[in-house]
Amino acid sequence: MEELPGALGTSASLALRLGQAIFAVASLLFMCLGVEFYSYTAFCFLVTIMGLVIPWSLTLAVVDVFSIFVKRPAGQRGVLSIVVIGDWALSFLSLAASCSTASVTSLLLVSEGFCDAKLCTRYQLSSAMAFLSWFLSLASSLFNLWLLPSV
Amino acid sequence: MEELPGALGTSASLALRLGQAIFAVASLLFMCLGVEFYSYTAFCFLVTIMGLVIPWSLTLAVVDVFSIFVKRPAGQRGVLSIVVIGDWALSFLSLAASCSTASVTSLLLVSEGFCDAKLCTRYQLSSAMAFLSWFLSLASSLFNLWLLPSV
Repeated sequence: MEELPGALGTSASLALRLGQAIFAVASLLFMCLGVEFYSYTAFCFLVTIMGLVIPWSLTLAVVDVFSIFVKRPAGQRGVLSIVVIGDWALSFLSLAASCSTASVTSLLLVSEGFCDAKLCTRYQLSSAMAFLSWFLSLASSLFNLWLLPSV
Repeated sequence: MEELPGALGTSASLALRLGQAIFAVASLLFMCLGVEFYSYTAFCFLVTIMGLVIPWSLTLAVVDVFSIFVKRPAGQRGVLSIVVIGDWALSFLSLAASCSTASVTSLLLVSEGFCDAKLCTRYQLSSAMAFLSWFLSLASSLFNLWLLPSV
């Protein structure tokens, strides 16, 4: 198995995974801390998806750390396929959640009385963080897909 | 170039393209006909993206028809790359537009006085059609991506 930067078991992949987890945690914190987010479907969706992204990214970050330091590349084709499919699904779901949150926030901003400026800014930040998490997730998925035929 | 069902220049691809165009037109019609859609950002986004999907799918449908009947497979690597990237981008954008519309509609349904049941049903149908168009677009993109290394 050749070393492709960004594929499972490399330090670039570790950086991507940590980035995904950090952005997902930031998105969750902006959305949840002291806000009644559960009155809107889109916000619940975002919280659910970010709650899935965090353990997934952290698990794969642990695999990367193990692979970097113990020097045993986990290059089974089956494992890599599962990682690609999981990344794929989660990246679609985070894109959907991020766009839903953004559009609902823009609607809430226009209609008076639903949220004050400070609250809406937090929703927007949360959506932006989810978007960044989507981007990194897509990058991981593409790198692993690229590696798949050569395993 | 081997014949892969669903790749550029086959009858399955023609069916996929026509499906995309039909669903996109249906989505546009449900959204636009006699409705003041432009007061919501998400709905404008959906209309824009569906307005991009229709000419793209119809152009590639024409390429498919040409390729089926005149029997000259358009198997240049460059052309195929452009088609894959275009499909990719449009499929992400249609997913985003569809989810935005769905979440805004669900918010409008909950808050009284913004839309009556009939109007909201039309928005929901429009969103569902955009979702189906996304799905077919993703299928096209995956088939062409699969073909890409063998060209």
